[in-house]
Amino acid sequence: MPHRKFFSYPFRVYIEDTDAGGIVYHANHLKYMERTRTEWLRAQGIDHYLFSGENNALDTSQLTNDQESLLKSSFSFVVHQLQITYHQPAIMDDLLIVTIEAVSCGAASFVLKQRIERDDTINGVVKRVIIATAAVTLACLNGKLKPRRLPDNIRDLVQLALQD
Amino acid sequence: MPHRKFFSYPFRVYIEDTDAGGIVYHANHLKYMERTRTEWLRAQGIDHYLFSGENNALDTSQLTNDQESLLKSSFSFVVHQLQITYHQPAIMDDLLIVTIEAVSCGAASFVLKQRIERDDTINGVVKRVIIATAAVTLACLNGKLKPRRLPDNIRDLVQLALQD
Amino acid sequence: MPHRKFFSYPFRVYIEDTDAGGIVYHANHLKYMERTRTEWLRAQGIDHYLFSGENNALDTSQLTNDQESLLKSSFSFVVHQLQITYHQPAIMDDLLIVTIEAVSCGAASFVLKQRIERDDTINGVVKRVIIATAAVTLACLNGKLKPRRLPDNIRDLVQLALQD
Amino acid sequence: MPHRKFFSYPFRVYIEDTDAGGIVYHANHLKYMERTRTEWLRAQGIDHYLFSGENNALDTSQLTNDQESLLKSSFSFVVHQLQITYHQPAIMDDLLIVTIEAVSCGAASFVLKQRIERDDTINGVVKRVIIATAAVTLACLNGKLKPRRLPDNIRDLVQLALQD
Repeated sequence: MPHRKFFSYPFRVYIEDTDAGGIVYHANHLKYMERTRTEWLRAQGIDHYLFSGENNALDTSQLTNDQESLLKSSFSFVVHQLQITYHQPAIMDDLLIVTIEAVSCGAASFVLKQRIERDDTINGVVKRVIIATAAVTLACLNGKLKPRRLPDNIRDLVQLALQD
Repeated sequence: MPHRKFFSYPFRVYIEDTDAGGIVYHANHLKYMERTRTEWLRAQGIDHYLFSGENNALDTSQLTNDQESLLKSSFSFVVHQLQITYHQPAIMDDLLIVTIEAVSCGAASFVLKQRIERDDTINGVVKRVIIATAAVTLACLNGKLKPRRLPDNIRDLVQLALQD
Repeated sequence: MPHRKFFSYPFRVYIEDTDAGGIVYHANHLKYMERTRTEWLRAQGIDHYLFSGENNALDTSQLTNDQESLLKSSFSFVVHQLQITYHQPAIMDDLLIVTIEAVSCGAASFVLKQRIERDDTINGVVKRVIIATAAVTLACLNGKLKPRRLPDNIRDLVQLALQD
Repeated sequence: MPHRKFFSYPFRVYIEDTDAGGIVYHANHLKYMERTRTEWLRAQGIDHYLFSGENNALDTSQLTNDQESLLKSSFSFVVHQLQITYHQPAIMDDLLIVTIEAVSCGAASFVLKQRIERDDTINGVVKRVIIATAAVTLACLNGKLKPRRLPDNIRDLVQLALQD
């Protein structure tokens, strides 16, 4: 699949995501954004949670449903830093569109801008409402949870997206 | 949409659903089953969390993105009883298929059988694996959280499904 | 600490546990019950998620803050079956008391009854209200997620509690 | 209770908070921080989720276990902005200490610094490890989810803490 500057994925808000205030609980926006990162990599043929070697995240054509792969993984991605601004509340049954835009790429980490939005229809006109905006710094760690170099194929993906 | 004996909906397992044991945390299966009940009703044109009157759950053609509707609701569904058997672990990245089958319908409650399954491909053959099975009793409550009669359109839906 | 027929532990309901219906989301009761099982074993000096050998769950006097122990664990407990009845809603800020009572013990599994309750003060009189009741079957699995014999010290604990 | 510059509260990590990476899932740190804010206000006799009037969050001496209070609330606090840096992973069974320090106070919002820490004992010496640090901007909204002035007693609390 060709790389793109923006990647978007939809998620439905279910009652499990809401709180007694009637809106999506503030921590759950982070889940929607993480799911989008997973789908972004899956769209490129990369399952970034299953790793087969030192330098490359696993190509999904080699994917097995095997618990041992997870345990043998020699690296993972973790969120190092995150800033989020909540603009409008999301409520139950909303269909949210979550977006990724690459911002920068270093040796062992990269930064993404992410947006959570919703299309509202008011008087027959569709208006895109911003629910939340965020900047997320992701770092690559080895099997012992220490920093390590980004896998080649993921660095290539991020840098291609930066060029758009 | 015609009523059916079985209703199925797919859900992806994301890392948020898993725990340090490497599998989907046991309470999260209940979320997948609740989402499926929501989609089952949505497929019938019913958004059961937004209610406009005493006897009918709201038809989605009248749906507005309005916080007040939620607050004015004169009833809701709650789980009264649930039994679940966990057969096989679900792991990250699984695509789970969750199913509903109506079992019985009373004046103020109804019972559904639900299954969580996954299609595994082993040596090129697709095999459906059962992750979990459950029986769920749903009760209808009024605005003061006291039992009340099922809405007519939902009782009709459940009873039609029972006839299949 | 002496074994007891009943073990209780308190948990506060925070907004994260509630949903747009204003009550604790039905799946979250399972979390409170799991936390209580963890505290029950901790009270006996057993941290059941860190295992050092084939036959015994780790004594907390040997506990280290070491990620590798988790990975080297040769067994874990999982919920095999669970039945829960929801009697009264729990709401935000409730202080819930969750209880364990041992029911039976087999070679590779055991059954616990659990209750979630709340003390309400009405006209100066304290009344214990039952929020939910459950029966939980826990099975012991080895490192490959296949059934295995209960650790000796945990079987001893459950059987002592049964004798009370 | 006298106001203090720093408020701390402990929380245990249970398996529900962890993910398949073996560490606390990144969104769950936000839950620990929100619980601490709730306990900070509770320690001052304020239950900020139940509101009785325009200008004051409810004093807990008037607290009732009544669902209607929640619905009649004329305001709430929401997170408007949050920045978090993840320094070290938290793992299952950790006892985390979460802290609040007031940073600034405006007419309709205030900023808190929060830290999540853990005391590790290495060679008999206790060392406080920083798990995560955050800055959280909380805004006050009215019953229609629009911005409104901070309640008097909460502004007083934040400003007293700032003076320390």
